[in-house]
Amino acid sequence: MRTKTDRMSLFAMPMGSGAHCAGWRHPLAGDSRLHSIGHYRAIAQIAERGKFDAMFLADAQGFRPIAGRDAYACVDAIRMDPVTVLSAVAMATSHLGLIATLSTSYNEPYSAARRLATLDHISEGRAGWNVVTSTTENEAHNFGREGHYGHGERYARAAEFVDVAKQLWDSWDDDAILADQDGGRYFDPAKVHGIAHQGTHFSVAGPLTMGRPPQGHPVIVQAGSSDAGLDLAAQTAEAVFTSHPALESAQAFYTDLKERVAATGRARSSLKILTAIQPVIADTAEEAEAITRELEALIPADLAIALLQMQLGGMDLSGFDPDGPLPPVPANNASQGSQKRIIDHAARENLSILQIARHIAAGRTSKTASGTPQQVADMLTDWFAASAADGFVIAAPVLPDMLARFVDGVVPILQARGLFRTEYEGTTLRDHLGLTRPASRHAGHPERHVEPEIWAEISR
Amino acid sequence: MRTKTDRMSLFAMPMGSGAHCAGWRHPLAGDSRLHSIGHYRAIAQIAERGKFDAMFLADAQGFRPIAGRDAYACVDAIRMDPVTVLSAVAMATSHLGLIATLSTSYNEPYSAARRLATLDHISEGRAGWNVVTSTTENEAHNFGREGHYGHGERYARAAEFVDVAKQLWDSWDDDAILADQDGGRYFDPAKVHGIAHQGTHFSVAGPLTMGRPPQGHPVIVQAGSSDAGLDLAAQTAEAVFTSHPALESAQAFYTDLKERVAATGRARSSLKILTAIQPVIADTAEEAEAITRELEALIPADLAIALLQMQLGGMDLSGFDPDGPLPPVPANNASQGSQKRIIDHAARENLSILQIARHIAAGRTSKTASGTPQQVADMLTDWFAASAADGFVIAAPVLPDMLARFVDGVVPILQARGLFRTEYEGTTLRDHLGLTRPASRHAGHPERHVEPEIWAEISR
Repeated sequence: MRTKTDRMSLFAMPMGSGAHCAGWRHPLAGDSRLHSIGHYRAIAQIAERGKFDAMFLADAQGFRPIAGRDAYACVDAIRMDPVTVLSAVAMATSHLGLIATLSTSYNEPYSAARRLATLDHISEGRAGWNVVTSTTENEAHNFGREGHYGHGERYARAAEFVDVAKQLWDSWDDDAILADQDGGRYFDPAKVHGIAHQGTHFSVAGPLTMGRPPQGHPVIVQAGSSDAGLDLAAQTAEAVFTSHPALESAQAFYTDLKERVAATGRARSSLKILTAIQPVIADTAEEAEAITRELEALIPADLAIALLQMQLGGMDLSGFDPDGPLPPVPANNASQGSQKRIIDHAARENLSILQIARHIAAGRTSKTASGTPQQVADMLTDWFAASAADGFVIAAPVLPDMLARFVDGVVPILQARGLFRTEYEGTTLRDHLGLTRPASRHAGHPERHVEPEIWAEISR
Repeated sequence: MRTKTDRMSLFAMPMGSGAHCAGWRHPLAGDSRLHSIGHYRAIAQIAERGKFDAMFLADAQGFRPIAGRDAYACVDAIRMDPVTVLSAVAMATSHLGLIATLSTSYNEPYSAARRLATLDHISEGRAGWNVVTSTTENEAHNFGREGHYGHGERYARAAEFVDVAKQLWDSWDDDAILADQDGGRYFDPAKVHGIAHQGTHFSVAGPLTMGRPPQGHPVIVQAGSSDAGLDLAAQTAEAVFTSHPALESAQAFYTDLKERVAATGRARSSLKILTAIQPVIADTAEEAEAITRELEALIPADLAIALLQMQLGGMDLSGFDPDGPLPPVPANNASQGSQKRIIDHAARENLSILQIARHIAAGRTSKTASGTPQQVADMLTDWFAASAADGFVIAAPVLPDMLARFVDGVVPILQARGLFRTEYEGTTLRDHLGLTRPASRHAGHPERHVEPEIWAEISR
């Protein structure tokens, strides 16, 4: 069920200056120059030093709703374009996979396929695509729509979008480029195909303006957790990024998704499941716990309460004492499961509004793995052994420091246990993940050739 | 009327393996690895060694119509995504400007503004945007449209697109980022503005997901030559790329466009005009002439005649002897001026169909400057002195060789004459071109602030 070597995969996921919303304020944080490529380059080089499979850039073409501008002002919400950033990072690394988030909601498949193919060519086979659908209102409003697409339409559009991209990546055969200087033929016309796609959401003639990507297709990554998202992942994803508060839910997710993969006729090992971990690492468990508490204390009260309100379906907490208990939550249409977890957690630990808000804000992206390098390595080892994950997305709360602590402290332990590579064995992201290179749909199928419209006789 | 130092500007424009359609076949050509970033990096580093202002990547998200797949197969028509390529090139250079072509027809202003701002941040102020409208049918068909936009709509859309991009680049004030770790404020909310643009073609809420680009706005470049194109350039462009067969037409164009600039109230020097030159340089004029003839002979007959047919409004020449004279051209709706030049040229020099076809194919992009370094430098000096251009786009017919010959042979002569810089004096593309950094529309205008919608109270 795992890769042939039964080793785990590791992705680095820098989110702003750190995955923790107050990570940028901590004394361990760098100077938070999020507009400087040096920030991303440093992180990539640390990850490559640690033999990570890939670096993963999240994205949104707009802002999440956070109530109130003063709350927003606490967040390092800078998001530069991932493909553009990773192309620069490619030049400062040699093996690290480069996974760019690119939404199927507010892009077109022709330009998306082209940008990702360009990144795969530039990096010589290290590109991955985190396929997402967009759900924030602000993104819709940045692209001329009154609201975001409904759930069903969003996923239908995503499935067709990925299908079109793959058709475009197959539009040049692997051996279509001749560059025959003597014969004067740059390519073999029989090996370049139109796609003539006429679908529900897209009409695309093709072919792409460049040869097939080195990996055939850049690696397809997804993170959806809804039923439709999981079905799309089971059909098309090669790596899935998820997040769980506890081992049990991670195991249940893992089993469910691998079943869905098998049900589509794919090998279970053709999709890797990676769980996000927020590591807080220090020489002693006490020191790590102190850093966690420091981080929590650095979350501004305004921001914490705004984020809690968002989680509680937009409930207005402004009339309540932040140091008092959480009042009953009125009925609303936000996720019931996560609200119940919040309410139970607050009651069980007897937390005030502000305390629960800070807990939520601190843990919003991923499970915290706190302790010594040994303790963090043990947790990853346990989860991996218990089939809760094929690997981990390391969402360091403070950058670049906590990623470096992970690489220098935890990785050697995992390596000594034979659970992680000591050297890269291949050069592409597919190599690292143990994924096969997809054959083109045209290989051995001359009957599938569609003459590109661009070769039509224009004199008629 | 010129920059304060009265020096010329130079752009390098790699088109495939060379601006000449058979350049990739010439023995001087490199190995034509157009999918390898090494190709673009080598060209960029030669241009930077020559203290060029910028490198300029043309683009189209589809293919031009060339009759017949065998003709097409002769062309190195690979086009990777320019912003993505130039982001990688940024990491291998330190001063060279990086101008990416990005169409206003089949993109959205929010993502375009974001990608260009990212490139400007990554390169620390070296980004330029070649604003184009798309006119090939294949591009329309790659983006779900039955045909390309009509001329008027195309330019109206382009003007609004550029306006929206500039609003987005101004959506964060230059000093909006605080990164105040102690105070817990990453930015100053009063210095981030929604744009709330509701136009004819676009509705965009804003703000951008990143701070103001280092140059304020990336440099706006254009190449349109229609009346609408020139008017758009006069209003918005800071550099215009053009192409002329002779000094007189270049002078007329220069005078006309500078007049249009002045008519909009802008300083004439705020728009630089660069003319494309295809240099063929050798130790002797005869040797350069021989290379020109070799290049012409390398153009496959099929391709040459297909291109001639395209220029002659789609006339079908397949029934005529390629070694015989050009028959009368039937009435058609392609450019009358260029057809007349072709017909007159063929008659004057008594050329066969194939001969005139090869002449056209060879010179399709730009004026050839053939001869010794001294002769080429003289031509550039003359054109510059005669107010035919503020600078030149060097479209080397064979890459990287002819660009290197220009840099090593012609540039030192221009430098010795005081016509070109010997060292970079600034670090941004604006510095190189002597263009001012645009102030934000919000600077000193607090009444223009629009509260971003993302700060709305979501609890309501």
